[in-house]
Amino acid sequence: MELVTLDDVRAAGARIASVVVRTPLLPCPWVKTGRDRSADDRGLWLKPENLQPIGAFKIRGAHNAIARLDEQARARGVVAYSSGNHAQAVAHAAAAAGITAHIVMPASTPRVKVENTRSHGAEVVLVGDDEREAVAYEIVSERGAVLVPPFDHPDVIAGQGTIGLEIVEDLPEVDVVLVPVSGGGLASGVATAVTALRPNAKVIGVEPELASDAKESLRAGKRVDWPVADRFRTIADGLRSQPSELTFAHLRRRLHDIVTVTEDEIRSAVATLARKARLVAEPSGAVATAAYLFHGDELPVGRTVAVVSGGNIDPALLADVLATPAGEED
Amino acid sequence: MELVTLDDVRAAGARIASVVVRTPLLPCPWVKTGRDRSADDRGLWLKPENLQPIGAFKIRGAHNAIARLDEQARARGVVAYSSGNHAQAVAHAAAAAGITAHIVMPASTPRVKVENTRSHGAEVVLVGDDEREAVAYEIVSERGAVLVPPFDHPDVIAGQGTIGLEIVEDLPEVDVVLVPVSGGGLASGVATAVTALRPNAKVIGVEPELASDAKESLRAGKRVDWPVADRFRTIADGLRSQPSELTFAHLRRRLHDIVTVTEDEIRSAVATLARKARLVAEPSGAVATAAYLFHGDELPVGRTVAVVSGGNIDPALLADVLATPAGEED
Repeated sequence: MELVTLDDVRAAGARIASVVVRTPLLPCPWVKTGRDRSADDRGLWLKPENLQPIGAFKIRGAHNAIARLDEQARARGVVAYSSGNHAQAVAHAAAAAGITAHIVMPASTPRVKVENTRSHGAEVVLVGDDEREAVAYEIVSERGAVLVPPFDHPDVIAGQGTIGLEIVEDLPEVDVVLVPVSGGGLASGVATAVTALRPNAKVIGVEPELASDAKESLRAGKRVDWPVADRFRTIADGLRSQPSELTFAHLRRRLHDIVTVTEDEIRSAVATLARKARLVAEPSGAVATAAYLFHGDELPVGRTVAVVSGGNIDPALLADVLATPAGEED
Repeated sequence: MELVTLDDVRAAGARIASVVVRTPLLPCPWVKTGRDRSADDRGLWLKPENLQPIGAFKIRGAHNAIARLDEQARARGVVAYSSGNHAQAVAHAAAAAGITAHIVMPASTPRVKVENTRSHGAEVVLVGDDEREAVAYEIVSERGAVLVPPFDHPDVIAGQGTIGLEIVEDLPEVDVVLVPVSGGGLASGVATAVTALRPNAKVIGVEPELASDAKESLRAGKRVDWPVADRFRTIADGLRSQPSELTFAHLRRRLHDIVTVTEDEIRSAVATLARKARLVAEPSGAVATAAYLFHGDELPVGRTVAVVSGGNIDPALLADVLATPAGEED
């Protein structure tokens, strides 16, 4: 299988530069880890992708995929099915490119997310929970529209990989990069860029314990299927997908390891990011930080970057997490 | 009176580049204003200074002031009196420069702020609420230490002005910059840089209605004193100071106007910044955004940047603000 290359990621970077936010690395002088790493720890930086216009890194892959379409394809528009950040990412990218987007969402999607997607000018098609994929493919065949998948495409992987380019540009001596794993597009892209530019650096995936199918798959050397009902137990609603053949091939080759975090650790990391880093992160966006805060003894020591992948959290949940008394980090 | 120049600000930018975060401008596709500006509005960008290592812009001025000290002065260390963001800024800057810092704080300062200041390696001196200034000057005379003031110094003004440099660098066609006003160091510096680089742009100060002494002073053409008790009514605890002769001279010459915001508008802007921009802002840090959201009809139309100056909010207050039902912005 042909994997995405550093050149692909660089080309993506040039394509999306004018529409995505060039997020900085944020040093964390407040950080303490679970074990005493003071002697050889070299610190933590956050890559705040929650600050992208739609509140998540997904905007990078969507923009790159759409920028790659030729004129005929653009005239027919794009389609995506998603109830999450990918929906808004495709809507935003289509609007920026001036093309039509149909987003197929389950009728059960919270109203706010439907409205946010519509606000970018996309046509939202509400369907039954099981019909998303079928309806999306109907639109593809009827209109000749192009389906933009959330992770299973080289252009999407290359787009997400631009985060890795920026990390190495801002911190050339980076040793460890922590990145959430769900469908694996983000982890594949970031690992591609970081390990190509800095072969000694280690990119480590992070999953919720309750949806750690990718960790089990890496251990088994082949993709292991977890039942949907199991994966949907985690509060990290953006991390319930499984890698595809394409992303799994990237993860096997380029990811150093996967560590898992508990639900309590995820909630605690959401609170710490708000209290200490002044960032609003959604649970899925906080898992990499949680791994650093609570699983330092499973990580290589060195200059570490945690990708804060998104910030679309229900305000009531954020309020609840903040109202919980702080642990020793305060 | 000699005012700070663009060259001073540029020199400050070179001095502090390695220790402050180069914050991006964040576009706000979600924004709606109080009046229908859709026809000729050109959008809002946020300058998130709450993402600096100490959670506030104050780090810029403190670093510049300390970087300007000669070797003899460095050997004697620095002093500051503050219970707020300036305390941590001076502690951070002194640590980065490898010099001693004494920070004089009222004994009533919340423990978290004392600990945060100590965590940067500063010597915290707790004193009675009225003794801060006197004790700071004692340390100055005993040790020959240099006092770093929170705003009343050209080096501090020039440091804060680097925010203006970055705004014009990232958005050369900026029309309006909204910036909080308290002691006026931030507004003086930003107005100096922005109006020098883009003479047609307007820098507009924002104050809480309950502490709008600077607005009254500008109207009167001279500094008008407000009683401390009056200024302390606002929830925006970072905006209770008054301009000095030096900062007032800058504001008169370089600020286009000052608009005021209510306490409810400040709380609402804190909530909107968390919900929509995924930023944790303190009340003082949210006033510029509040002006854009609620006083659009008092502002010039055009590409507008609001400076989010700080994010050190009590988590319980943030939780409370988030638990309040959202207005029409949701």
